[in-house]
Amino acid sequence: MSDQTAGAVVLLSGGMDSTVLLHHVARTQNPSPLISLSFSYGQRHSKELADAEWQAARVGVDEHRVTPIEFIGELVSAGTTLVYGGAAVPDLDDVTKDALSQPPTYVPNRNMMLLSIAAAFAEARDIHDVYYGAQAHDEYGYWDCTAEFLERINNVLSLNRRKAVTIHAPFVADKKASLVRMGMEMGVDFERTWSCYRGGDQPCATCPTCVERRNAFAEAGFDDPLCG
Amino acid sequence: MSDQTAGAVVLLSGGMDSTVLLHHVARTQNPSPLISLSFSYGQRHSKELADAEWQAARVGVDEHRVTPIEFIGELVSAGTTLVYGGAAVPDLDDVTKDALSQPPTYVPNRNMMLLSIAAAFAEARDIHDVYYGAQAHDEYGYWDCTAEFLERINNVLSLNRRKAVTIHAPFVADKKASLVRMGMEMGVDFERTWSCYRGGDQPCATCPTCVERRNAFAEAGFDDPLCG
Repeated sequence: MSDQTAGAVVLLSGGMDSTVLLHHVARTQNPSPLISLSFSYGQRHSKELADAEWQAARVGVDEHRVTPIEFIGELVSAGTTLVYGGAAVPDLDDVTKDALSQPPTYVPNRNMMLLSIAAAFAEARDIHDVYYGAQAHDEYGYWDCTAEFLERINNVLSLNRRKAVTIHAPFVADKKASLVRMGMEMGVDFERTWSCYRGGDQPCATCPTCVERRNAFAEAGFDDPLCG
Repeated sequence: MSDQTAGAVVLLSGGMDSTVLLHHVARTQNPSPLISLSFSYGQRHSKELADAEWQAARVGVDEHRVTPIEFIGELVSAGTTLVYGGAAVPDLDDVTKDALSQPPTYVPNRNMMLLSIAAAFAEARDIHDVYYGAQAHDEYGYWDCTAEFLERINNVLSLNRRKAVTIHAPFVADKKASLVRMGMEMGVDFERTWSCYRGGDQPCATCPTCVERRNAFAEAGFDDPLCG
């Protein structure tokens, strides 16, 4: 049997949820090594990746990795607006009730792909624990952000005979406003987190994630330093 | 709800198991569309991909796709000998008892990655059914080729609220020799299937997969047209 270290891999998109998660894991677990893992997949918003790198440096991770998975854009382009070249991102007002049960920015099977890649990486490095920033605010209906999804992913990974990686989503029952509060307590610089699904220089303030973010800050009693 | 077509996606590596599977699915299901999906990941043996393309044309698939996932080589290079640049592939004789429970050509979490990508692609195309060629000959201990693994992967995918893709592995209880017989009955040209893990012009005949393949043909009572 291989030795297992007490390291951790944290999926870091550069959005606010995973950024708060990275700070939280560093502070509460102090893993060694602590590795942040981002993915480039032709996002409309490459600022997200720049912010991820900035936050990784701020936390002082042992390694920050950006894994290129651009193939996803071409592979599932029929199914999402989230990658460059896809359809336009709609405003929240334009999102109908039916669409809310699966948002236009949904990427088919995205989290299973990303988590399986993260688990492969962790396994290759003899790391046991992978963290991702799913939270309870799933108004937009991502089936792959739920506690049940997480449990079933771990049921697959637990079959690994040598090094069973476990995926943790410590915020899966928390609201987005709680993450704002937690981040503020830890001194997270939210100006360096990116949520907007559109590719502009400033957040658009009208796409579904911008609206969610604004509401979360308002509920937590703070101004969003980025677009408050 | 989106309409679901009766199409199928078949994972096609260019090896003998998935080649027999492609012929089998075409003949027994006659799906429309029938799409074969290969992955390029810096294999030592690119002949495999050429054979996959040849077999796809032979079967007359509606679409053959090669998805580039070279990132896997770099991401998990510490954990496998299977990609170009990794350690040398050992002969079967050099593989110790302990290593047999997880072979040196094992790629960390490979099948979960590949199946999740295939499921994403199928979902984006409104296709319900994905086939892969896992078979019972798991002497070398791939935890991600078992019926239980398959069942748990489908437990994850079944959470999808709109288009739950199902992964099928119709050969999961069959021995490799049965696949040889089945392929022979269907007229599969085994000369255009590639199994060797080494990168030579001809199969090495000594690596674990070459030995498995030779034994399967012998057990089925045939000569392997490739290296028989």
